Amino acid sequence: MTTIKATETPKLTNPVLVVGLPGIGNIGRVAVGYLVNELKAKKFAELYSEHFFPFVILEESYEVKLLKNYFHYWKAKGAAKRDLVFVTGDCQSQSPEGHYQVAEAILDFAKKLGVKDIITVGGLATGEVESNPVVYATLSDAKLKEKYAKMKLDFDVGKKVGYIVGAAGLMLGLGKERNMQGICLLGETSGFPIVTDPKAAEAVLNIIVKVLGIKISMAELENRVKEMESFIKRIESLQKKAVMEIVKESKPQSKGDELRYIG
Amino acid sequence: MTTIKATETPKLTNPVLVVGLPGIGNIGRVAVGYLVNELKAKKFAELYSEHFFPFVILEESYEVKLLKNYFHYWKAKGAAKRDLVFVTGDCQSQSPEGHYQVAEAILDFAKKLGVKDIITVGGLATGEVESNPVVYATLSDAKLKEKYAKMKLDFDVGKKVGYIVGAAGLMLGLGKERNMQGICLLGETSGFPIVTDPKAAEAVLNIIVKVLGIKISMAELENRVKEMESFIKRIESLQKKAVMEIVKESKPQSKGDELRYIG
Amino acid sequence: MTTIKATETPKLTNPVLVVGLPGIGNIGRVAVGYLVNELKAKKFAELYSEHFFPFVILEESYEVKLLKNYFHYWKAKGAAKRDLVFVTGDCQSQSPEGHYQVAEAILDFAKKLGVKDIITVGGLATGEVESNPVVYATLSDAKLKEKYAKMKLDFDVGKKVGYIVGAAGLMLGLGKERNMQGICLLGETSGFPIVTDPKAAEAVLNIIVKVLGIKISMAELENRVKEMESFIKRIESLQKKAVMEIVKESKPQSKGDELRYIG
Amino acid sequence: MTTIKATETPKLTNPVLVVGLPGIGNIGRVAVGYLVNELKAKKFAELYSEHFFPFVILEESYEVKLLKNYFHYWKAKGAAKRDLVFVTGDCQSQSPEGHYQVAEAILDFAKKLGVKDIITVGGLATGEVESNPVVYATLSDAKLKEKYAKMKLDFDVGKKVGYIVGAAGLMLGLGKERNMQGICLLGETSGFPIVTDPKAAEAVLNIIVKVLGIKISMAELENRVKEMESFIKRIESLQKKAVMEIVKESKPQSKGDELRYIG
Repeated sequence: MTTIKATETPKLTNPVLVVGLPGIGNIGRVAVGYLVNELKAKKFAELYSEHFFPFVILEESYEVKLLKNYFHYWKAKGAAKRDLVFVTGDCQSQSPEGHYQVAEAILDFAKKLGVKDIITVGGLATGEVESNPVVYATLSDAKLKEKYAKMKLDFDVGKKVGYIVGAAGLMLGLGKERNMQGICLLGETSGFPIVTDPKAAEAVLNIIVKVLGIKISMAELENRVKEMESFIKRIESLQKKAVMEIVKESKPQSKGDELRYIG
Repeated sequence: MTTIKATETPKLTNPVLVVGLPGIGNIGRVAVGYLVNELKAKKFAELYSEHFFPFVILEESYEVKLLKNYFHYWKAKGAAKRDLVFVTGDCQSQSPEGHYQVAEAILDFAKKLGVKDIITVGGLATGEVESNPVVYATLSDAKLKEKYAKMKLDFDVGKKVGYIVGAAGLMLGLGKERNMQGICLLGETSGFPIVTDPKAAEAVLNIIVKVLGIKISMAELENRVKEMESFIKRIESLQKKAVMEIVKESKPQSKGDELRYIG
Repeated sequence: MTTIKATETPKLTNPVLVVGLPGIGNIGRVAVGYLVNELKAKKFAELYSEHFFPFVILEESYEVKLLKNYFHYWKAKGAAKRDLVFVTGDCQSQSPEGHYQVAEAILDFAKKLGVKDIITVGGLATGEVESNPVVYATLSDAKLKEKYAKMKLDFDVGKKVGYIVGAAGLMLGLGKERNMQGICLLGETSGFPIVTDPKAAEAVLNIIVKVLGIKISMAELENRVKEMESFIKRIESLQKKAVMEIVKESKPQSKGDELRYIG
Repeated sequence: MTTIKATETPKLTNPVLVVGLPGIGNIGRVAVGYLVNELKAKKFAELYSEHFFPFVILEESYEVKLLKNYFHYWKAKGAAKRDLVFVTGDCQSQSPEGHYQVAEAILDFAKKLGVKDIITVGGLATGEVESNPVVYATLSDAKLKEKYAKMKLDFDVGKKVGYIVGAAGLMLGLGKERNMQGICLLGETSGFPIVTDPKAAEAVLNIIVKVLGIKISMAELENRVKEMESFIKRIESLQKKAVMEIVKESKPQSKGDELRYIG
């Protein structure tokens, strides 16, 4: 089961859903996490799922932490035209079916909040270190392209890469089925070593603030990226250890085990 | 989903459920299949499930055949004291959850027919060829032991082997939860090469007919075993090929594939 | 969940369901896709499922594309005797349970449209390049054989191969459970290298048009096959990369990882 | 499905849930199992699940045994302040989804009994043999720390290890979502060879009895640990064999198998 618990049902005007979950390069998680912090967006709901890894994280505050995705909202101010709903989180699903189920749960929840437009953020690993990372973009509907005509975006990503695995892509695809439109922004990153690239995150953030008409300081980006990175890397490393442990446990240990077949 | 379709709802008096599905040595499938044939038991229901392998078998009659389990019934005659319901089939489940779900579906269906007693048949592979195969037995309730005091059964199987994988064991365990009692008969077989051992099947059959008070000729056993064996071996071989094909399809083919990571 | 969305509920007279999904050699996908194009059949429904791979495809039109199966219908004209419903698509399921669930969803949907007859198309890889590919056939009911007596079909496929994995076979088997009858046509193909063989596709198409009494030009077949092939190969390659990526992510990266066991 | 069957609905006053299931070092299973025995707690419910391994255990009593988790309760006496509900068992789930589903089933059942506080017990393998094993602790809420101020507990476990796989951690995390608070006690153990360490179990038990204000004799601990160990090791070994068997069965046996691809 996938459970979403809301502490509040915010009344939002024509809100935009902005999704940044962990993935290659963690561009999405970091860029959207930074936005949430800078805008002091308000957390109002949490999601957990049997499709996440079956472990809890031990935090330095002595507390166990269930793996979760988080919803924050922010009411439009100043030059910003639209209210915003953010989705960030500790992880994505561990099974193919889970990817679909969690994405559909998030979209159905967002739809009830009045969301019709989606921005998802991910990374595109090219294997090379770029000093001026490109932001690639793909759409739920080709007609939307003119809307982003003035942005510095590379829409020819379809020729270079063929697919987007996980939430960043599925949210657009499944959103379309719910009459939600959107754009997926992919920050160019080397992909190796798997660290968070503040430059790629900044490149994506520069696009997002322009699209949304919001103003945030980038001054703290590098510091915050480092903070988030340490947490994200920890979960990544835990997932790998957890998988290794599960694999280990399900393998016979001694080769000399006498075997009898019964059935 | 697991579907059971009945063409008839037989009125049975205190029937015994006799289960023989494919497994190590196929003792169960062969022994119970022979019983069904010899008694001319009547097929009245079929079961198919998403937990079986996702393929159909091509029969020489030009027809495709869905993998199924089958229900036959037989009304007590002569010395036989009880009506009988038989479960045989082409396969068991391909997933752990499937083993439980299919066993529970069969038991719930059998309960509606009035079944309170179960006999399941399996094989126990010892790795050695035995000219006089032992029939091992285990129970849903230790109190039942005296009921079988006069049978030539080895109940000390628990010391030799630790567990029974799949239907033969789960049906007893899950049956107990439904107030059904039973015995699991395990024919001793070498287990290698994986062929059906008519002697082990005969040994188990000799016990079953004694328990049920029925009379059948064993004259055709060896011939029928050969017939059934060819069909069973075919399905086994198909399952292996199917698994291999599935594994093959989900593996990248050329190592030189240029990889880009997106997410 | 498996979702079918229809934009229209066509009123059809005794329609035949014609299914061609990706598989070995892509004979089915290509042959049925060509039919849909040549007949200008009308798309009226789409299916997507959590049992497909969890990624979206990036199209050159800048749009993300959810993996889907498609339904088209065609009203009988000229010599054609029956209305037709076509199922084509980007992929089949990634799990055994998914194969059953998606096939059952398609059949239940087709049944509501009045479908009682099914033609499924697949490929049979022999490992050898044939200049005159045979079309093998298997049936849901051996009695149907006389209906196809005048067609050049090899019904002895059951002796050569044992099973059909996936939709082409399951649709017949599960269809039979819904009182739908049908034939599965398997175009003989080398199977290596895994490319689409226009000759095998043409051989199958020649049978289909005869069975359905329709007339189409084969003039464009080779060209269309090339077009479709490029798209199909792309999805195939993506699936392999996606699987590789998923495998990669779930494996520990450095062997020096300090491990501590907790639980 | 996960099924809980209760033979009794005990009326309990503000009970504490104490959970000890098999895991690394089996500290939890052994410590809580010993408590149940010493307190002569009364068994009142059993849980079985399709998420457990699909086999039954053969006991020396000639009975098959379904894999289960068990609920016992104990009414407060003497210095003890609170009624207790214990969860012990033969195994944990075999799939990630199962870990969540079984933990949620246990918590929902416990909540109906009035449980608001949870103690889970596990082991922490350090790779080194310790003569004075530390008891590590982690909480569902950092505020609880002061409650345990007088106990000899190491709360800095979050810095040393990152996560807890399975029930011991998930029960706290998912419990929190049900307004249940708790502590997870992890006995330090070498983790190799995988045997049950009576010292680590005793260290944890010393904390539990202090927290709960109960008195038990530790005199029998070493003996009981040995008894339980033999049973636990048997199940562990069976799980490994079962997994090996399943892996074996789903692999093609002879490399020379002639393969034909169909689809």
